[in-house]
Amino acid sequence: MDNNKRPTAVIFSQGDEVITGATVDTNAAFLADKCRLLGFDIIRHITVADDMDVLVQTLQDIDQIADMCLCTGGLGPTQDDLTTEAFAKAFDVPLVFDETAYQMMAKFFTQLNLTMPEVNRKQAYLPAKATRIDNHWGTAAGFVSDGHRCRFYCMPGVPYEMENMLSTFVLQDLQQHFSIAPTRLVTLRTMGMGESTIQQKINELNIPAEVRISFRAGLPENELKLTFPHAYDEQQLLQCVDRVKQALGEAVYAIDGLGQSVVSLADCVDQLMRAKGLSLTALETLSQGGFAKQCQADWLRQTYIYPVVDNVANDFAFQHRGVNETTSLAIANQLLLKAPSDIAVVQLFCENQRSEVDIYTSVVSSHGSLSTTRSLTGRLQRIQINAAAACLNLLRKHLLTL
Amino acid sequence: MDNNKRPTAVIFSQGDEVITGATVDTNAAFLADKCRLLGFDIIRHITVADDMDVLVQTLQDIDQIADMCLCTGGLGPTQDDLTTEAFAKAFDVPLVFDETAYQMMAKFFTQLNLTMPEVNRKQAYLPAKATRIDNHWGTAAGFVSDGHRCRFYCMPGVPYEMENMLSTFVLQDLQQHFSIAPTRLVTLRTMGMGESTIQQKINELNIPAEVRISFRAGLPENELKLTFPHAYDEQQLLQCVDRVKQALGEAVYAIDGLGQSVVSLADCVDQLMRAKGLSLTALETLSQGGFAKQCQADWLRQTYIYPVVDNVANDFAFQHRGVNETTSLAIANQLLLKAPSDIAVVQLFCENQRSEVDIYTSVVSSHGSLSTTRSLTGRLQRIQINAAAACLNLLRKHLLTL
Repeated sequence: MDNNKRPTAVIFSQGDEVITGATVDTNAAFLADKCRLLGFDIIRHITVADDMDVLVQTLQDIDQIADMCLCTGGLGPTQDDLTTEAFAKAFDVPLVFDETAYQMMAKFFTQLNLTMPEVNRKQAYLPAKATRIDNHWGTAAGFVSDGHRCRFYCMPGVPYEMENMLSTFVLQDLQQHFSIAPTRLVTLRTMGMGESTIQQKINELNIPAEVRISFRAGLPENELKLTFPHAYDEQQLLQCVDRVKQALGEAVYAIDGLGQSVVSLADCVDQLMRAKGLSLTALETLSQGGFAKQCQADWLRQTYIYPVVDNVANDFAFQHRGVNETTSLAIANQLLLKAPSDIAVVQLFCENQRSEVDIYTSVVSSHGSLSTTRSLTGRLQRIQINAAAACLNLLRKHLLTL
Repeated sequence: MDNNKRPTAVIFSQGDEVITGATVDTNAAFLADKCRLLGFDIIRHITVADDMDVLVQTLQDIDQIADMCLCTGGLGPTQDDLTTEAFAKAFDVPLVFDETAYQMMAKFFTQLNLTMPEVNRKQAYLPAKATRIDNHWGTAAGFVSDGHRCRFYCMPGVPYEMENMLSTFVLQDLQQHFSIAPTRLVTLRTMGMGESTIQQKINELNIPAEVRISFRAGLPENELKLTFPHAYDEQQLLQCVDRVKQALGEAVYAIDGLGQSVVSLADCVDQLMRAKGLSLTALETLSQGGFAKQCQADWLRQTYIYPVVDNVANDFAFQHRGVNETTSLAIANQLLLKAPSDIAVVQLFCENQRSEVDIYTSVVSSHGSLSTTRSLTGRLQRIQINAAAACLNLLRKHLLTL
């Protein structure tokens, strides 16, 4: 499909909070990602302050360059909220009182046992001929309305409200009004393999040029995204994903977009723990609760945190073997006896001579054990995140053997 | 100072990663916040994709509407990195090879024991008459150069490199080239008081109109920001801050911008624990390590995590008094004996009959104790954050009495 034929889109954010830097605009990336998958060509993100003249001019400018605009913010009850009025001015349409929007707002306040302030009445005025987008999650109704060329979707800036409006109304409306060809996204979630290594392994595969390859480097996980063109042959798609999976080996812990849904390594472990009905006890050192925080109360029975490894010796026998992988395994066995559960995870650490941190992780259950040593470097926060992930990943690997 | 007289600024981000939503643009908020404090009027954030014609046009457009532009991204070695060339085209200046930029890059590669690929040579070309901005943190040199009206600062998109260039070069250059009047920011950090309550208390104070009041609602902390005009009388400033502090009472745990620096509640507790040279043992339930994660290994000796309160009874005596504030205090006393340290913090919880969660927090040391009960509601993640913050805040209050 020719890039030039894709409808163009602008992401338009408003509000003093965003323009002054008081708030990071996460809406823009969220909306852009959704648009791209639907098949739009995103040509601009624009943010302006709460200024009527600038707003009117910007809406008119966007109308000249784009087929579609997703606009967030400026729908609130205060004098700074100017989007609806600016739209009416930009395209010379009157504002009309929308009784349903008003009633929905009144109901929202009633449910919270509050009286609706008179100032909120303003939010029930929408541009004539606009279609209301119901807001079941807050007070500000949104609307969709056409300029001369561009179709504008105006939504509140509150991410939760905006995301709900998008999924319940906007995505369907976009598919009805534009001849777009939604692409298909398959995400391979990986753990323990660097972005450049992934890149190199992918380069060797000669993936067809029409399959868009992108990375989302996260900490500690990396995502490899394969975006397939609209109506790509299913058999070829599955073959392509399988080749990539084979090339990345056991670094891939989940594949999203083929029916299964796993949103993170913690989610993957949670699904396995529940499916097998097992319980866990853990001992964390360096990650200081970063592992416990990612476990679920349904199966995490207890965690001991000792930020300093020496203090572990108060409750567990080190047997003069020093801090190493063998000791972490020995302590995991003690832990199973001390705080009975099906599985025990133990993390110890020690600075090595290259000023890196060696992390010793062990998992033990009645079916066997697994241990690893990893050398980590960088800032403490980064090392802690990786250390917690090492616990999750080793636990996952052990669960797959049960 | 009249708003209209402030120099205008545009924040300009580039790159496919940002426009497609693969990356959230945190640079824009960071740069906008710095500009605003310096006294600039930020009129737009603009993001475009890696397209030469669009880049040239956008640079020319910005030159028409702004006095200054902070531009990030597009300085890398690949074919998608077009900023420097686009700037040269937009303002009809040649590109010139910069020997120093080249040597710095070569040195950067040498330090990493790598050979510089030939493709990086491109990064040493800068627009004629531009001033190089040295990059000691990566490969891409930045530059500052004037359009017809606007002064453009072009920096890499990597936040770490950009932030370092900003603090070592750009901020000083801005102050030299613009007659700006830096404002003064004082931030009151609060805990345990809602945004609307803060707003109401502030409204009653009749703060002078020239003092800009803004909020940053965080979880679990709220910040009240007072921005004072350039050269505001110091005595009046201190009086104003003091009045606000009195009005908000003990909700204020720190004030930033008057010499002292405290970046969070955890930082506040850390400073107190270090100053007093004390150690801590804790027992967490609902927050599952969220408290331990915010403590420092220098003084956190040990934490027990029991996601389910019933399991606490395996290691501590409940004495048939049920789960309540008294029990949390009793367990804190047991904890001091079991894992000796100067202070013990205990968190228990119980769902109440209104489907809220009651959190019982206790702090005990040889100098006395403090306990609280708080009812929390909402999503689990939100409750966990608030529960961990309640531990920190109670510990802070206890530390202030020692």
